[in-house]
Amino acid sequence: MDRFSRFASVFALALAFLAFGGSVGAFPAPHASAAGPTGLLTLMPVPESVTAGEGRFRVDEDLAIGGPGVPTSRSFKAAARFMSRLAGRTGLFLKQDFLAAQKPAGDGGIRYTYEREGRLLPNEDESYTLSVATGRVALNAKTDIGVLRGLETLLQLLSADEAGYYFPGCEISDRPRFTWRGLLIDVGRHFHPVDVIKRNLDAMAAVKLNVLHWHLTEDQGFRVESKVFPKLHELGSDGLFYTQVQIRDIIAYASDRGIRVMPEFDLPGHSTSWFVAYPEFASGPGPYAIERRFGVFAPAFNPADERIYPFFDAFFKEMAGLFPDPYLHIGGDEVEGHQWDANPAIQAFKKKNGLADNSALQAYFNKRLLRILTKHGKKMVGWDEIFQPGLPTDIVIHSWRGQKALVEAAQKGYQGILSNGWYIDLCQPAEYHYLNDPIPADSPLDDAGKKLVLGGEATMWSELATFETIDSRIWPRTAAIAERLWSPASVRDVEDMYRRLGPMSLRLEDLGLLHIKNQDMLLRRLAGVQHIKPLKVLATAVEPLENYERHGQAAYTSLSPFTRFVDACAPESMAAWLFGNKVGRFLAGKDKKVGAEIAATLKAWKDNHALVLPLLAASPALREIEPLSLNLARVSEAGLESLDCLTRGERRPAAWVEARLKVLTEAAKPAGHAELAVVKAIGRMVEACAEPVK
Amino acid sequence: MDRFSRFASVFALALAFLAFGGSVGAFPAPHASAAGPTGLLTLMPVPESVTAGEGRFRVDEDLAIGGPGVPTSRSFKAAARFMSRLAGRTGLFLKQDFLAAQKPAGDGGIRYTYEREGRLLPNEDESYTLSVATGRVALNAKTDIGVLRGLETLLQLLSADEAGYYFPGCEISDRPRFTWRGLLIDVGRHFHPVDVIKRNLDAMAAVKLNVLHWHLTEDQGFRVESKVFPKLHELGSDGLFYTQVQIRDIIAYASDRGIRVMPEFDLPGHSTSWFVAYPEFASGPGPYAIERRFGVFAPAFNPADERIYPFFDAFFKEMAGLFPDPYLHIGGDEVEGHQWDANPAIQAFKKKNGLADNSALQAYFNKRLLRILTKHGKKMVGWDEIFQPGLPTDIVIHSWRGQKALVEAAQKGYQGILSNGWYIDLCQPAEYHYLNDPIPADSPLDDAGKKLVLGGEATMWSELATFETIDSRIWPRTAAIAERLWSPASVRDVEDMYRRLGPMSLRLEDLGLLHIKNQDMLLRRLAGVQHIKPLKVLATAVEPLENYERHGQAAYTSLSPFTRFVDACAPESMAAWLFGNKVGRFLAGKDKKVGAEIAATLKAWKDNHALVLPLLAASPALREIEPLSLNLARVSEAGLESLDCLTRGERRPAAWVEARLKVLTEAAKPAGHAELAVVKAIGRMVEACAEPVK
Repeated sequence: MDRFSRFASVFALALAFLAFGGSVGAFPAPHASAAGPTGLLTLMPVPESVTAGEGRFRVDEDLAIGGPGVPTSRSFKAAARFMSRLAGRTGLFLKQDFLAAQKPAGDGGIRYTYEREGRLLPNEDESYTLSVATGRVALNAKTDIGVLRGLETLLQLLSADEAGYYFPGCEISDRPRFTWRGLLIDVGRHFHPVDVIKRNLDAMAAVKLNVLHWHLTEDQGFRVESKVFPKLHELGSDGLFYTQVQIRDIIAYASDRGIRVMPEFDLPGHSTSWFVAYPEFASGPGPYAIERRFGVFAPAFNPADERIYPFFDAFFKEMAGLFPDPYLHIGGDEVEGHQWDANPAIQAFKKKNGLADNSALQAYFNKRLLRILTKHGKKMVGWDEIFQPGLPTDIVIHSWRGQKALVEAAQKGYQGILSNGWYIDLCQPAEYHYLNDPIPADSPLDDAGKKLVLGGEATMWSELATFETIDSRIWPRTAAIAERLWSPASVRDVEDMYRRLGPMSLRLEDLGLLHIKNQDMLLRRLAGVQHIKPLKVLATAVEPLENYERHGQAAYTSLSPFTRFVDACAPESMAAWLFGNKVGRFLAGKDKKVGAEIAATLKAWKDNHALVLPLLAASPALREIEPLSLNLARVSEAGLESLDCLTRGERRPAAWVEARLKVLTEAAKPAGHAELAVVKAIGRMVEACAEPVK
Repeated sequence: MDRFSRFASVFALALAFLAFGGSVGAFPAPHASAAGPTGLLTLMPVPESVTAGEGRFRVDEDLAIGGPGVPTSRSFKAAARFMSRLAGRTGLFLKQDFLAAQKPAGDGGIRYTYEREGRLLPNEDESYTLSVATGRVALNAKTDIGVLRGLETLLQLLSADEAGYYFPGCEISDRPRFTWRGLLIDVGRHFHPVDVIKRNLDAMAAVKLNVLHWHLTEDQGFRVESKVFPKLHELGSDGLFYTQVQIRDIIAYASDRGIRVMPEFDLPGHSTSWFVAYPEFASGPGPYAIERRFGVFAPAFNPADERIYPFFDAFFKEMAGLFPDPYLHIGGDEVEGHQWDANPAIQAFKKKNGLADNSALQAYFNKRLLRILTKHGKKMVGWDEIFQPGLPTDIVIHSWRGQKALVEAAQKGYQGILSNGWYIDLCQPAEYHYLNDPIPADSPLDDAGKKLVLGGEATMWSELATFETIDSRIWPRTAAIAERLWSPASVRDVEDMYRRLGPMSLRLEDLGLLHIKNQDMLLRRLAGVQHIKPLKVLATAVEPLENYERHGQAAYTSLSPFTRFVDACAPESMAAWLFGNKVGRFLAGKDKKVGAEIAATLKAWKDNHALVLPLLAASPALREIEPLSLNLARVSEAGLESLDCLTRGERRPAAWVEARLKVLTEAAKPAGHAELAVVKAIGRMVEACAEPVK
């Protein structure tokens, strides 16, 4: 890692050039007027090794790219996308017809090489080296997948100076820390159309993720066309499913981006939608309708019914032909048990087969499934619950319960991937996800055990996310998880991660992601007018309730509107993070200028309520946020008073402090299924005003 | 039309409630604080007859809808979309599971009826009546297509008061003036993916357009999968084409929205992409590559080569099976002629067959094509050029040349549709398109002739439009064209149209259109930061060059970046229109308050340049707009000086006026392929300062 430390020092130097944006609503990002090699300083994920060089490779209309690929090959297509994205960002009319022919002009240009085509399997080589100098870029890799990873890095390097655009001179050597870097998208609870999946594949490629875990069946919907059992999608999906043609198209799209597609069919629970078509396979009498509510439900397959196994045999034969990935995820989580307990035939079956409890019954079911998957050439992946004695060690344990389960599995020789800590639907901060590590520094695993930890996946469960909001629930926070999975373990500077998350978020938007722009759209829809600035100001200080708290506020169903103010709020407000960061610097006395910035922000928040009120009057859907807006004004008032006190170097009596903390406690209460995200930071300012205890 | 005049008086009353938004960048729209039946006052297109009533139908969680449809029927699916959109706008958790079962609760709710399923043919009945009263909405139509049109009107009626959301009491009777109300989307010059087409179909349905004219082949691309001649799409599209499965999916999607899909295969010119696969069918020797440039090119099919007719026979047999619409458009425009003139075999063929010129040769080709289309059950549509003696009268002449051609055709018994005046790619103002009429008041046609004018189409040629910008090139201006084609001829109040265009634009965004939100995205990409307000302020005063002037500024190709500032600018700036409108009112002395609003706008524009400069420093791609920004500051200065003069009731000497007009003349020059849109309005203010001629 010694080369990385050199990179870290480049970073330290760079901070002198970079300032955080100061206005309300701004992302922490390099200041607009910062000229210089910003690209080198905002790479995400951070490469294994970066050495800054002297030269600058000029990006102009003569830019050409070339390598061994032909127009149908993965690397050629990736290079064409690279050129198109580069033209898009720079506005340059590139002369090379990069769709028809690619080769660098003369000795210059961008040259890429690879030794062989990469296979979409765990442990494939994704490494690359990138050398940028004046007039020459060389990108070399073992596989074409490595070329793809390097092209993403190169595009991130784009910088500008007075003469125009350039790539800063550097030597980069890079490879992933973990081989399984995934994003789970739940299309069962809410269906997400093909274009949602495709744009998220583009985003995944941009941050070097390489596994799309496609959660395809749920109580709320069966989302795959089955030609063998067409009633499954016809009756179980409300017409919202992927055709096999669409699935093949998505797999090809992912393959072009070096991404595996692993399907999940969650069994034996989470399966109501299957029973709309085949009630006879359930453990209870039915009838069944597509579930609209959210939670853990009773319907489960009947492991004692011998008819289900030929059914799964035929079904997984079809799916094994449709999905080329060697792994298939069978879910296995949260079998609720009531249907099994209430079915006398199942009770008799358990007794007859010596199955002591439902856990043993599920293990029996899994072993039968495993035999079927093995027959059709698939390796089994499942959630923690599938980890039962007697399973072969080429299965993969997917841990939603935690690292302890992962360690136990590895110690018994099982491969594992981590998702605990990466439930991005729960609207937790990027910092929390970023510091989560599949192999923490204090891991009890030996080297052999560590090798069994393949990586992890961010999980986008979609009870509360629709095609309009899912991008903002995934991005940009998942870029922080991607960095944890790709970059060296030593890359853990939270503040630096947040600094790079802003530019990364814009790069993701560049690919067509809606995570930034749909906030305004949602607010315009609610307000019924274009003038939404007061709502945006409020949204910068508000976050959706975390964890599962939002479900406690209303009986959400898959038909509920996800178009309220809370849905327009980002899971983590970057402005609130930045505000908290400034408060920290102010209280630490390290940054004297920051007091004025804090004052300006608080003033804007305080004055905002009067601007919000007329919008609420015109829009009944917005009226639920009045307490948030009013409380933001109140806590900002407390913050301004505290700032004034601290700036004067004064202290205030306990009663003064208590009165303001009471306002803050009141303001911390949720409204409209959301909460103020700046109360804690203001609380620190208020508390700092307290007279020292005598 | 007497019932309409009653509606007009409702409008007049309403203007007392409505005020235009005042801030820079705002759309002319009802003020946010305006409570009242805004829905009734912003209908677009205006129905044939509207009578306002007394009651209010409350929209709450108990709302239910029902009609004769079953879940697979067009009206049921439309009602489900209606409920989903209504929930989205109101944030209401509707209790009815509208995906599974629809019927109004008790006597209340929304009840729709129709007599029969509508057919997707010209002259189908699309009429409906809508009756809204307290506790009851009745929507009755002859066909289910009429129900769809009525549901769009009902959704537009949504209004709010202190108690919540409601539909205002009213009686509406409505039907279209023209039966052919189309939008052409050119997917040849730039390919537009399936989701672009689908969201534009949603938008079309929202403004009651009913024909998607799909321009599928061009010199720059062959965009349809042909299973009979797969080389066509394999070699002629860069991989950017629609599969037949996708085409069927889009046709079904359109049918669900009561929209016909008419394909166009432009022949015998505009056909380079065909010849990449089949050079032997061209009139010149080749070789051929997919054209990247724009313009009128030489390659054309060889009408003298007998081999092309069996080719077209087989091809159109396949396409006739793919596209169910009875009409098929064969283009026929702009045959450049050089290849025909240079080919001795073609010259000999003309001589032998008595074909005096290339026009006669094309007529010969068309007659052969007509026979093929007729054999496969299709009626022919073509651009003006196909109108030649001897063709049957069930063809349709599509006029890009003008109304005169349409009149000539009708006088000879031919049906016609108009597109002249509706070239929305040319970035002309909505007013220009709105006042264009297929049958103007002074039309020389008799009643029989008028019946032959079926309607018209807005044409979205896409030389300069990509999937990122096409929505903003089409919408909201096409809503004005849709109103011309649907509403009574007497609906021609331009100011009122602009007033309604703002709310209509937001309703379109509600459907997923990107015309509003992609402006910010494009500006963020250029600036590399989130803080783009100065660019947005500038964009409100700037428009892309009109007509074909942009092509004079650079050698655009299909691979050029369409990501510059000019691409982020709306074809018509609503803020500039609003500014001009205010200047008019100020100079007319009718609105005294408006002077202060003009001053605030000019001040913001003047101060903006200093805020733009740091963004330009950081972004080479933005530097081309510096003259626009500087000139906006200069003309705003001139405007402020003029406003001051006029407010004081003073006059200025000729030299003073001349000096400022010189600044304005300089500022009117294009930069960055765009131009300032506010120079003329400021010029009127400057000129108003001139001392009267003695």
